[in-house]
Amino acid sequence: MTWKRTHNCGELTAKDTGEEIVLNGWVATRRDLGGVIFIDLRDRHGITQIVFNETDKELHKKAEQLRTEYVIGIKGVVDRRDEENINPEIKTGDIEIVVDELIIYSEAETTPFEIKEDIETGEEIRLRYRYLDLRRPDLQRNMILRSDFYQTVRSFYHDNDFVEVETPVLMKSTPEGARDYLVPSRVNPGRFFALPQSPQTYKQLLMVSGFDRYFQIVKCFRDEDLRADRQPEFTQIDVEMSFVDEEAIMSSTEQLMQKLMKETVNEEIEGSFKRMTYDEAMTTYGTDKPDTRFGLEFADFSELVKDSEFNIFSSTVEKGGAVLGITVPDQGDMGRGAIDRLTERVQDETGAGGLIYIKLNEDDGVKCSVGKFLKEETVEAMVEKAEAEMGDLVLILAGPSPDVYKQMGKLRLMMGEDHNLINKDEFNFLWVTDFPLVEWSREDQRYHALHHPFTSPHEEDVDKLDDDPTSVRSRAYDLVLNGYEIGGGSIRIHNRDLQSRMFKLLGIDEEEAEDRFGFLLEAFKYGAPPHGGIALGVDRIIMILAGGTSLRDVIAFPKNQKAQSTMDNSPDHVDQEQLDELHIRLKRGVEVE
Amino acid sequence: MTWKRTHNCGELTAKDTGEEIVLNGWVATRRDLGGVIFIDLRDRHGITQIVFNETDKELHKKAEQLRTEYVIGIKGVVDRRDEENINPEIKTGDIEIVVDELIIYSEAETTPFEIKEDIETGEEIRLRYRYLDLRRPDLQRNMILRSDFYQTVRSFYHDNDFVEVETPVLMKSTPEGARDYLVPSRVNPGRFFALPQSPQTYKQLLMVSGFDRYFQIVKCFRDEDLRADRQPEFTQIDVEMSFVDEEAIMSSTEQLMQKLMKETVNEEIEGSFKRMTYDEAMTTYGTDKPDTRFGLEFADFSELVKDSEFNIFSSTVEKGGAVLGITVPDQGDMGRGAIDRLTERVQDETGAGGLIYIKLNEDDGVKCSVGKFLKEETVEAMVEKAEAEMGDLVLILAGPSPDVYKQMGKLRLMMGEDHNLINKDEFNFLWVTDFPLVEWSREDQRYHALHHPFTSPHEEDVDKLDDDPTSVRSRAYDLVLNGYEIGGGSIRIHNRDLQSRMFKLLGIDEEEAEDRFGFLLEAFKYGAPPHGGIALGVDRIIMILAGGTSLRDVIAFPKNQKAQSTMDNSPDHVDQEQLDELHIRLKRGVEVE
Repeated sequence: MTWKRTHNCGELTAKDTGEEIVLNGWVATRRDLGGVIFIDLRDRHGITQIVFNETDKELHKKAEQLRTEYVIGIKGVVDRRDEENINPEIKTGDIEIVVDELIIYSEAETTPFEIKEDIETGEEIRLRYRYLDLRRPDLQRNMILRSDFYQTVRSFYHDNDFVEVETPVLMKSTPEGARDYLVPSRVNPGRFFALPQSPQTYKQLLMVSGFDRYFQIVKCFRDEDLRADRQPEFTQIDVEMSFVDEEAIMSSTEQLMQKLMKETVNEEIEGSFKRMTYDEAMTTYGTDKPDTRFGLEFADFSELVKDSEFNIFSSTVEKGGAVLGITVPDQGDMGRGAIDRLTERVQDETGAGGLIYIKLNEDDGVKCSVGKFLKEETVEAMVEKAEAEMGDLVLILAGPSPDVYKQMGKLRLMMGEDHNLINKDEFNFLWVTDFPLVEWSREDQRYHALHHPFTSPHEEDVDKLDDDPTSVRSRAYDLVLNGYEIGGGSIRIHNRDLQSRMFKLLGIDEEEAEDRFGFLLEAFKYGAPPHGGIALGVDRIIMILAGGTSLRDVIAFPKNQKAQSTMDNSPDHVDQEQLDELHIRLKRGVEVE
Repeated sequence: MTWKRTHNCGELTAKDTGEEIVLNGWVATRRDLGGVIFIDLRDRHGITQIVFNETDKELHKKAEQLRTEYVIGIKGVVDRRDEENINPEIKTGDIEIVVDELIIYSEAETTPFEIKEDIETGEEIRLRYRYLDLRRPDLQRNMILRSDFYQTVRSFYHDNDFVEVETPVLMKSTPEGARDYLVPSRVNPGRFFALPQSPQTYKQLLMVSGFDRYFQIVKCFRDEDLRADRQPEFTQIDVEMSFVDEEAIMSSTEQLMQKLMKETVNEEIEGSFKRMTYDEAMTTYGTDKPDTRFGLEFADFSELVKDSEFNIFSSTVEKGGAVLGITVPDQGDMGRGAIDRLTERVQDETGAGGLIYIKLNEDDGVKCSVGKFLKEETVEAMVEKAEAEMGDLVLILAGPSPDVYKQMGKLRLMMGEDHNLINKDEFNFLWVTDFPLVEWSREDQRYHALHHPFTSPHEEDVDKLDDDPTSVRSRAYDLVLNGYEIGGGSIRIHNRDLQSRMFKLLGIDEEEAEDRFGFLLEAFKYGAPPHGGIALGVDRIIMILAGGTSLRDVIAFPKNQKAQSTMDNSPDHVDQEQLDELHIRLKRGVEVE
């Protein structure tokens, strides 16, 4: 027997006084005050206070059994609270329900942690009892934000004449970059499907098919060694357009993000997003995903110090390295101890060899830690270049390129955090463009695609593909929000010959190219439109919108850092019979406890 | 270089005459008429005729290279066609474009089949070149219908306060019914994930978490031996609600279907859908998914003939079997030869032993094929019971139950098709309810759940669970459309003890229940609301809406009947290194060619 509710637990107010109503929900709290029992009844919409008086003995007795997290239904009448009992914090705070009838749908044992906001419980326990963790208001909010997010994305693309197409989950294994998850085929012995790392080839084929504008919110999979911010399965907004250049895709993505920000967190983001080339991002921020909510751009001192007598500077520049500085405001009087501790952290966390500084403060004037090796005008020129003012601290790293840029990028972030230079309420978007098409992997002794092998080079750089490939710029663009890469895309190659050249450059010989990507090369034979697209990371965007720092808090049933779900104990052992049917067995020596 | 189009190929009309426009698209046809070249330029929005005059020699020469399926861009001016050249069949039929500039984005070889509606090409070739097949207007329409369908579904549920939650694709293997697809874990040697056959347990956990109303359009997977109408991966609309009974779910589903029918195929479906118990469906139509677009309901003659001298009738009834008839209108003068051929088909296709009939026609009156063994009044009573009139044909099968019902169900469908009794434009919805909770499997010597182990029994039948389980009715309901099961759901068990009893009844012992479903049983300890839901088959519904008969025509990249994608040759062999990393190897003797 289930009572049909008349209202949810978040909507009754004084204007409903006198109404006979039915509510269903969870017992959030229970107080027994001299015979009158008060219960906060909870559902995902809110909380309503219900009251059991002593007048109905039988009912009262039943209510005495109630404990936290019992699931109940009640029939009763809405009563206005006395003035002094009004709770202005919640919508239903000016009423309570005087209960006439009670039904207990389900009893509850004591939960392993409290069902409330901001608990201290370790994540291990929370994941083990994920269904209880999801009962907490913060996670409920995240999931509802996520649900609203989906609808906004889909209505945006649908309204803009994009066709939503589902691409296969069981596809061909073409590992490039990350490892594929494999799925053995029962009916095709010895053969395997792979789960998609991205529907890249399918969306390109849809362009060849003439769908013109495609989108999908889609699960993708990467079998990586997990880091804090990775999950084996993740969700992306996947988009592709025909007959477009970079501008069209970037502009449509900006409109989407503006709409999303407005509709989910009520933030107005106006105008086009900032843009920056990869080179500029690397030389200014030491990363291809700079957090542009704060400054501390790099000053390049190399030219100024290349002839200095300070050997670390001059020899660094001579060997092609760089001497870089950032200006930290208002830290010009940092003490010796603090600087020593910072130096140690910098060495630990960035790998830099040491930290040099210039302090500018009223007491000491301008004081450089290696001043005795430098001319006074050199230090002055550095201060000027760094735009440092009295009271500031200039931090300097010297080292080989590109390492020193990356080290300085980390130091910059460290300073931003340490000295509260980051406005946490801000949403700062940035496009990074003109990535190199390929980079040389010393480890593999071959070129790797910086994005993927389908990315188009700049037309004017194509003739450098053979002789100077690392100087070829790609038509790729990444979208960065607050220092997180939230998406990336490119104009693709739509020409068979160019695609073949690209495979060759990446060390994929003709036979292998045919075996792995023959269908795409063949598709290009029958009339392929120019096309490009983007993929946006849903989990990460929602994490940022929700103001969180863990992807696991915005995914309903995430895996832990060992790629396990401890709730249902998966992955798990399976029956030998299942393996037999799939024509596989465990490698010798693999034991499942 | 990509030109930004000003219009698509389906929108220019006479009111745009004189406009300078840019179009991009595919060459659909090319005609060379005395020097003037006419091209039908195609994109997914339509076709626009473009014209190359002889005046610009260079341009004309370039246009002479164009072949079918070349991808081009043109700049030109909209010109009104002469009255006699107007094509009223297409929106752009009253204009053509006089081309000033041409860009060729991509040449095209001759396609293996024509890019047009209704081709005769075998499906094998079409699947091999799926990206070309998807270029054809019928498949484009299906995909766009599908895209619109998604939006309608999601806006319906979102507007009704359902929360969209993504459930994991990498989950625990709990095979029940069909086989699981397995995914070996690299970081957890010897352990496997499974792909979901349905997010059943997750959506129930979401109810335990208090999400109240959940929906998702989600990919599911079943490793079955493929039949014509199955795919290894399929899409379902997945829904769950708390604090509801059957009515609430059925009514919300009806509203969804009404909205879908209206918005995708402009059909008004009014009022509640018909309902029928499983028993009624089986005894009236011989199937739990009757096509109710036509009559031919069964007449049960068993009582009338149980004492007849015709041994086949009397002994059938005596042994618990049944004698059933259907009345085929206007076939009362079917000739001897036609009846013989029908008898043969019935034996072949239904497995029935033989076919008995009563013909009613003006020439012979009422004539029963076994009339000499029956009293005249028995035949008359049968005619009356079958509501047969002069001109009709009553077809009779006798046999053991339930086989004879199923045989008669097939015969009924055969007659519906043969004699055009089915209105192919109609959409006829039906709920089938009160399924048996379990059935006895002779093969496995145990009970099987008719739906799944989480389905709640009727409250008043619970006390028969131990002694007479097959008589227990479940709170399950299937939604049937035109004879296809398009969805099914149930009120679930939300009580730990009852769920444990159910597992036991299904032969799942305590240890196994704990191992496979312990997390669900545990979740029920902490306050579970009464809940229920439904899952609707997206592929099949769209197939019906599109007026098709093959699921493959409404799935962008389907697998063939061997669960293969011949386009990209998946599943495929993988590197030994990949298997090594996954701690598996092929079984001895498995060779991959």
